[in-house]
Amino acid sequence: MSETQIVEVPLGERSYDIIIGAQALAGAGGEISRRMPGIRCAVVTDETVASFHLETLIHSLDAAGIEAHPLVLKPGEKTKDFDNLMTVVDHVLSCRLERGDAVLALGGGVIGDLAGFAAGIVRRGMRFIQVPTSLLAQVDSSVGGKTGINSRHGKNLVGVFHQPDLVLADTAVLDTLSDREFRAGYAEVAKYGLIDKPEFFAWLERNWRQMFSGGPERVQAIAVSCRAKASVVAADEREGGVRALLNLGHTFGHALEAATEFDSRRLVHGEGVAIGMVLAHRFSAWLNLASYDDADRVERHLKDVGLPTRLSDIEGGLPATDILLEHIAQDKKVKRGKLTFILTRGIGQSFIADDVPGEEVHRFLEETRSS
Amino acid sequence: MSETQIVEVPLGERSYDIIIGAQALAGAGGEISRRMPGIRCAVVTDETVASFHLETLIHSLDAAGIEAHPLVLKPGEKTKDFDNLMTVVDHVLSCRLERGDAVLALGGGVIGDLAGFAAGIVRRGMRFIQVPTSLLAQVDSSVGGKTGINSRHGKNLVGVFHQPDLVLADTAVLDTLSDREFRAGYAEVAKYGLIDKPEFFAWLERNWRQMFSGGPERVQAIAVSCRAKASVVAADEREGGVRALLNLGHTFGHALEAATEFDSRRLVHGEGVAIGMVLAHRFSAWLNLASYDDADRVERHLKDVGLPTRLSDIEGGLPATDILLEHIAQDKKVKRGKLTFILTRGIGQSFIADDVPGEEVHRFLEETRSS
Ligand SMILES: NC(=O)c1ccc[n+]([C@@H]2O[C@H](COP(=O)([O-])OP(=O)(O)OC[C@H]3O[C@@H](n4cnc5c(N)ncnc54)[C@H](O)[C@@H]3O)[C@@H](O)[C@H]2O)c1
Ligand SMILES: NC(=O)c1ccc[n+]([C@@H]2O[C@H](COP(=O)([O-])OP(=O)(O)OC[C@H]3O[C@@H](n4cnc5c(N)ncnc54)[C@H](O)[C@@H]3O)[C@@H](O)[C@H]2O)c1
Ligand SMILES: [Zn+2]
Ligand SMILES: [Zn+2]
Repeated sequence: MSETQIVEVPLGERSYDIIIGAQALAGAGGEISRRMPGIRCAVVTDETVASFHLETLIHSLDAAGIEAHPLVLKPGEKTKDFDNLMTVVDHVLSCRLERGDAVLALGGGVIGDLAGFAAGIVRRGMRFIQVPTSLLAQVDSSVGGKTGINSRHGKNLVGVFHQPDLVLADTAVLDTLSDREFRAGYAEVAKYGLIDKPEFFAWLERNWRQMFSGGPERVQAIAVSCRAKASVVAADEREGGVRALLNLGHTFGHALEAATEFDSRRLVHGEGVAIGMVLAHRFSAWLNLASYDDADRVERHLKDVGLPTRLSDIEGGLPATDILLEHIAQDKKVKRGKLTFILTRGIGQSFIADDVPGEEVHRFLEETRSS
Repeated sequence: MSETQIVEVPLGERSYDIIIGAQALAGAGGEISRRMPGIRCAVVTDETVASFHLETLIHSLDAAGIEAHPLVLKPGEKTKDFDNLMTVVDHVLSCRLERGDAVLALGGGVIGDLAGFAAGIVRRGMRFIQVPTSLLAQVDSSVGGKTGINSRHGKNLVGVFHQPDLVLADTAVLDTLSDREFRAGYAEVAKYGLIDKPEFFAWLERNWRQMFSGGPERVQAIAVSCRAKASVVAADEREGGVRALLNLGHTFGHALEAATEFDSRRLVHGEGVAIGMVLAHRFSAWLNLASYDDADRVERHLKDVGLPTRLSDIEGGLPATDILLEHIAQDKKVKRGKLTFILTRGIGQSFIADDVPGEEVHRFLEETRSS
């Protein structure tokens, strides 16, 4: 368990390291002061994460002589809004931090996206350190520099690209994460297999239990995931091309999150992605691009793990298909009216289709819902 | 007057043109549709500018078949705040504009900074077209990609770098600008001479009347100014080095704006800059770096033009020097505690001094105020 892996995200002068291991939190102060001497930090976190891990972090920063100004926000997706953005920005400015100082995000993807956005706009860009504490944040949101908040028009519609200077992924902090949140993050891990790593997907089918319980398989799965995302991001930093592959399951997933009004009691991001990935495989089969067997295999594994895989798994029902489609069309991945979807030819064989007609999606969803 | 000059801002793949001439507004639709076929626009403007020029612009866009969605805000510096940012962002999203569509700013620096910031964060960056209508916006704020809003902690503390795709500077629209605003913008024109173009400053001393009345001298002075700013920006896009020279007069100027609570009845930006430039020359002389003669010559010219040049020219008085210094220290141009100032060895011989002790500034201000 003391094994540490370092993944470099190669982005020229914006390159940075992701340090993955069970001691990353306690070692944060030393690591940061060694790499960025003299730095001061605003530490942004949420109440839940603070209750478990803030003390360890502050203690570590203190011991390294790093001035830290914590700000504790309410947990949950609703925190990613304009009001909280203003609160973080105002906090950072009140602490009189300068351009070379940092905003440090201690939390899941919500805190990371929000704090990263603030770091990207205060003084037109400050340093940014990610200490992701959810599995989803460790394997996904803390890699790639996307930051942002939600709008009433949809998720993540407002934000900037702002790369972190350092990511510290402590694999042991995941032990305090609820099973539900761990599983939700796992959907993103499985995603990397489904995009273009069939052997990783097969490895996960065999090893997911060990990974869940925290063995070296956990560090390994997280490192493979970060490396997978880093290589796509490096090839396409601003999402003009291949980076879209990372949206496998996300066009459907985001629409489901919007349809459930971002209410995390009903659906969290990774659950939407799990259902979305199964839908993407079924839709591909429905379009005669892939086999239903592969869709079944994906569904079986995600179900084994305990993830929802069907629209009917969402409690409280969904709005009419027209409304779902509207959520899909307002999604960022729309290009001049045509719908862009990530489809697949089978497990690990995904591709970008940027001319999917809305009616096909509509018919597919209608049939799926009535079956 | 039908003369048109084009200044290219050379920033690699973010390069763009500034078109300067008396027909730019009426020709906007043709120019935009030729360069960006199929584009749609959110047009952000303020009530004053709208009353004079919105119809001409909309008519021109219409004639070129460009869908345009106007949003008219209150005029004034106070509009550069979080609330209006939210309003613009929401407007753009409500119009369902996509990443390849544009936010078009029709107005002065306030509208340009605010709309540009919105363009930089909606969908993590949309296209941005500047149609600057104040002299200050034409020669300064529309060149260089700085966008942002104010905070209670200071001016422009929140924003992003987001380059426009096109700038259309119509020199005839300046005829509806108040004399006071025209003079304020002129301070920035004079600034380019004072930074490193002594012969341009001398040309202005001879030709400023013609420039004010709108002859070909106006197009000429604006083109020289844009070219001056463009070349500094090209050398230093993200303000790590020489770009700081553009802050000549601004560290004092921003502090004065903050001290007068951004109340444009008392002080507008360019007026703060005019006083700030005289102070920068006097401070340089006080530090034995330059001659008092040069400071006198700068003051004389700015006074001829009708600009305020002294702290005592500001109506309603100023807070204590300690408070002024606090505003200076909170200014973005602070680096790890030391004060960065643009000082000068004489007209057209400015340089960056990044280790000016706060006490020196304090003593200088105290002496200046009591003299
Ligand atoms: N920027 C990107 O590239 C990117 C990529 C994917 C997802 N996202 C965003 O990430 C968000 C989802 O991330 P998330 O699932 O981490 O959400 P989250 O931040 O809300 O965390 C989920 C829940 O787990 C709690 N939690 C986090 N770490 C914990 C720990 N160690 N122990 C106990 N509880 C803990 C949080 O308090 C929260 O209640 C969404 O907003 C999504 O849009 C962003
Ligand atoms: N982004 C940058 O690089 C940069 C550089 C310099 C200044 N700025 C910002 O620019 C702002 C100041 O710009 P400004 O002086 O243009 O302010 P402004 O936008 O408030 O315009 C000044 C006034 O003139 C009016 N006006 C504008 N054009 C007019 C016209 N053609 N006819 C009649 N009235 C007109 C406006 O309604 C306003 O009342 C400040 O907020 C400053 O921070 C930004
Ligand atoms: Zn995701
Ligand atoms: Zn200025």
